[in-house]
Amino acid sequence: MHEIGFIRDLALVMLVAGATTILFQRLRQPVLLGYILAGVLIGPHTPGMLVADAQAIDDISNLGVVLLMFTLGLEFSVRKLREVGIGVLLVAVLEVGLMLWVGTGMGRAFGWKGIDALFLGAIIALSSTMVATRTLKDTGKQAEPFAKLVIGLLVAEDVLAIVMLTLLTALAVGGSVHAGTAFAVIGHLGLFVVVGMILGLLLLPRLVDYVAGFGRDETLLVSVLGICFGASLLAAQMGFSVALGAFIAGAVVAEARSVGRVLHLVEPLRDMFAALFFVAIGLKIDPAMLWQYALPALLIACVVVVGKTLACSFGILALGHDARAALRSGLGMAQIGEFSFVIATLGLSLHVTSDFLYPIAVAVSVLCMAASPYLNRSSDRVADGLARIVPRPLHVLLDSYSGWLENLGPVNENAALAAMFRRLLWHIAINVLLVVTLFVIGAYVNAHGWDWFSRFGIQRDLRHALIWACALFLSLPMLIAVYRKAEALGMLLAELGIRERYTGAYTHAIRKVLARMIPLATLFALALLVGALGSAILPPRGVALSLLVALVVLAVVLWRTLVKLHARLQAALKETLDKPEPPAPEHSP
Amino acid sequence: MHEIGFIRDLALVMLVAGATTILFQRLRQPVLLGYILAGVLIGPHTPGMLVADAQAIDDISNLGVVLLMFTLGLEFSVRKLREVGIGVLLVAVLEVGLMLWVGTGMGRAFGWKGIDALFLGAIIALSSTMVATRTLKDTGKQAEPFAKLVIGLLVAEDVLAIVMLTLLTALAVGGSVHAGTAFAVIGHLGLFVVVGMILGLLLLPRLVDYVAGFGRDETLLVSVLGICFGASLLAAQMGFSVALGAFIAGAVVAEARSVGRVLHLVEPLRDMFAALFFVAIGLKIDPAMLWQYALPALLIACVVVVGKTLACSFGILALGHDARAALRSGLGMAQIGEFSFVIATLGLSLHVTSDFLYPIAVAVSVLCMAASPYLNRSSDRVADGLARIVPRPLHVLLDSYSGWLENLGPVNENAALAAMFRRLLWHIAINVLLVVTLFVIGAYVNAHGWDWFSRFGIQRDLRHALIWACALFLSLPMLIAVYRKAEALGMLLAELGIRERYTGAYTHAIRKVLARMIPLATLFALALLVGALGSAILPPRGVALSLLVALVVLAVVLWRTLVKLHARLQAALKETLDKPEPPAPEHSP
Repeated sequence: MHEIGFIRDLALVMLVAGATTILFQRLRQPVLLGYILAGVLIGPHTPGMLVADAQAIDDISNLGVVLLMFTLGLEFSVRKLREVGIGVLLVAVLEVGLMLWVGTGMGRAFGWKGIDALFLGAIIALSSTMVATRTLKDTGKQAEPFAKLVIGLLVAEDVLAIVMLTLLTALAVGGSVHAGTAFAVIGHLGLFVVVGMILGLLLLPRLVDYVAGFGRDETLLVSVLGICFGASLLAAQMGFSVALGAFIAGAVVAEARSVGRVLHLVEPLRDMFAALFFVAIGLKIDPAMLWQYALPALLIACVVVVGKTLACSFGILALGHDARAALRSGLGMAQIGEFSFVIATLGLSLHVTSDFLYPIAVAVSVLCMAASPYLNRSSDRVADGLARIVPRPLHVLLDSYSGWLENLGPVNENAALAAMFRRLLWHIAINVLLVVTLFVIGAYVNAHGWDWFSRFGIQRDLRHALIWACALFLSLPMLIAVYRKAEALGMLLAELGIRERYTGAYTHAIRKVLARMIPLATLFALALLVGALGSAILPPRGVALSLLVALVVLAVVLWRTLVKLHARLQAALKETLDKPEPPAPEHSP
Repeated sequence: MHEIGFIRDLALVMLVAGATTILFQRLRQPVLLGYILAGVLIGPHTPGMLVADAQAIDDISNLGVVLLMFTLGLEFSVRKLREVGIGVLLVAVLEVGLMLWVGTGMGRAFGWKGIDALFLGAIIALSSTMVATRTLKDTGKQAEPFAKLVIGLLVAEDVLAIVMLTLLTALAVGGSVHAGTAFAVIGHLGLFVVVGMILGLLLLPRLVDYVAGFGRDETLLVSVLGICFGASLLAAQMGFSVALGAFIAGAVVAEARSVGRVLHLVEPLRDMFAALFFVAIGLKIDPAMLWQYALPALLIACVVVVGKTLACSFGILALGHDARAALRSGLGMAQIGEFSFVIATLGLSLHVTSDFLYPIAVAVSVLCMAASPYLNRSSDRVADGLARIVPRPLHVLLDSYSGWLENLGPVNENAALAAMFRRLLWHIAINVLLVVTLFVIGAYVNAHGWDWFSRFGIQRDLRHALIWACALFLSLPMLIAVYRKAEALGMLLAELGIRERYTGAYTHAIRKVLARMIPLATLFALALLVGALGSAILPPRGVALSLLVALVVLAVVLWRTLVKLHARLQAALKETLDKPEPPAPEHSP
């Protein structure tokens, strides 16, 4: 009987996971490590303790990935990303890039084929959020200032992981990646993420808070899971990974007022499926293969620990933090984990990587996980040791460097102007992106909704005209917003750029011209963009022209209404993002 | 790609469940009903909204059954069963028996084959704990006195459901059930339940509290799930349903001090999988078939509502409660639910019932679930109406009946003696059961451990002698306990049965004889039982005799140690059961 087989396997896995979690908790070792080892122990390659249907367990652990990414998203939140700061993001990019390069180089040096080497680079590039945060918690250091840096780096790496996953998928499916394809993929991804985020932020936190108002945990949980899986489904339909959809859904729901309750409800699910996920990783491993590749695995693990520690430490140091915090952060990041498995599984399931890569990834992560608590506990001693070794002049240099950095920040007035400038550009970019999205959706509807239109007797030209008109009229508020922001930008630039002492009496006139030219140029650029985007669905010239005229008339007539509408949407978004920090989730005693 | 297919289906189901839960919560309808209807809507029989791989969803929903039964067990607890009282248990037995009989009769009247009719009886016999408790909660009546009666009836029905599931499985596999087989099955079941409970109560609550002491929710959750699935696995290995194992595990873990935290952690899992379980039920339904069998389904639903209401109301009335409470309890029980699906699925998966039975079961339960809130809300009006209709003499009769019942209870002194008597008998029964278990396990090891023994060069006779000796020596504490309790029983009976006024001077002598005879008779009966049970593993006569002699010597020598050992075990069990009521689980705001 299939059913009993499935439940039997699951029961076996869960039983072993339960025993392991108690044992490893007792031994004060990372529980994730225990799960993986337990998986190896009961796996199909170990005689006697056979798990029959690894496929079913695999399905369940895929479910685990979705829930894992969703909770990572819940703990991520857009606000946290903004708090991380551009500096930490930069460190993460450099560090991940470095590890990717080192990993690929190592793979080549081992004589592996190109794609194996590249996947190795990706596998060792990303630290494990689960291991790092747990180690912080277990060693009681989560409240120390450096913990914030680690969390910041992890959040930044999450974003990079999503980019990397998407690129690797495109690469594995397409065979190779040209710069153009990569750009298109990243563009697509960016569009999906930003649009998903904005629409999500407008709708979902309100929906979640509304449902939370019913006061029933079951309803809240099931609807939040509906959102999580719905977003995964959408991402999969658009050609991205389900993990991405779940992550974005989590990050969006994290802005709801009731995120504490949601997290509290989702955590048990995450814990159960994380256990299944890590045991399933072990299940796929043949111990004999581990033994065979022990040497490269050991080597790679050393490179991960040393490379990640050095890269992160130097990066944090360069940001102006003191040497001790830098070293501690570096050691906190010195491991790989769940993303490595997701990437290794991707390579396996798309049949592009060799069979040995997966066990190596597991072996390396197991070694790093095992080392992680010791590295973290010894960080103070290592820091003290280094402080004694490092010559005095270097100390002085470091101190003066961080002092110099502190003085480097922009001066008050300029800072305010720069912030205003940044905000205007940011608003214009988002609105342009929304317009682009509308036309992309229009093109998609045009291409895929063929049957549907012809069923209503709508022919090609009429269809084009309809879709084009819809896209155009829906983007009207955004177009007006872009115009207004561009106007403000022009005025700002005129004020800043044309100083009275150079232009004398003409100042006012020149400023006026500049202030007009910028919005007009923006509108022109926008028109070109819309024309290019809409080329697939452009109706016959006459229709298009009359539609454009109608649009302009409408814009003039409804100007104030549309400005108000856009302002209301923007205010709703701002309100969601700027609400006070939600209370920490309650924990049972 | 299989993985995406699975996640896609699951995502679709979860998305629909999420939307449904919000909608039905808003409409103030039972959410379970919504899940089922949503399942029908996206099922493979509805064009357009196809769920591809119903098997995978089925696997997941089987997982749901395990978690559902586990949480039912957690909320059940041995203490609650003791509080239910023998009266309510009796009402449940009569009511379930009546419905079983009525259902079977109806099936026959429809001209169905015998086993279909029997399954119909079983399907309509058991009320839905989930629906009934939720309806109580939603109508705000959970604190009223009659709610306790409903909960008691539901708990009692849970026990009957387990018996029924086991019997139906035996019947479906064996084709028919003779009285002997039924007796053997119930005996087996009783043995498994009681032994599982006792061993579980000795070990598991302590283990759970120990793990809870780590203070990490993840560890607690995963190990509790390990226990739940481990028990399911054990039950499946012994030939029972996984549901039974999960239920017992829940009832046992419910005695842990930290049950509040456990329940809090498991509830989100239960909610998620319950949603999947009920949607999966809908998925299996072809709406066309529902339409075809609409008439019998409607008829059966009416019989369920009227029959259950009347049977429960009269039962509760007969226990001496007032008419209003009786009617409310009856209306609270007037629906069928999760057990009906489990039973219907059993019939389907064992290929013994006809295809139409499952949709009918679903249709009937949907109708009952839809009616449930209205029935509950109208219970006061119905009670008032009935009170006006019922003639005065009947009122008086009812009042005097409940007054008479109150006076019926045993008088003080006799009550204390009767309680002592009952406790002694109970202790003897449990110890005998444990001895029986040891020999059954011995026989099992003898039958299945063949290879293992011969690997060590142990031949048949030696094997028998070894196992028999083990079973005998391990049962020594229990045997001594039985002897001591029987002695006490003999003394009690002697005191009670032989009154001085009848026997005069001989009183003391006769009492002494009686007090000795009872333990000796018990020991003799026990020896016969052990001989019969151990016949499969009885070593050659000489060996057996010498072992027996050794046993007696050992018993005499170690008497005090063994008595202490047994007392300690018994105290541990008692402590687990008699601990103060755990604090109510905390709920997030």
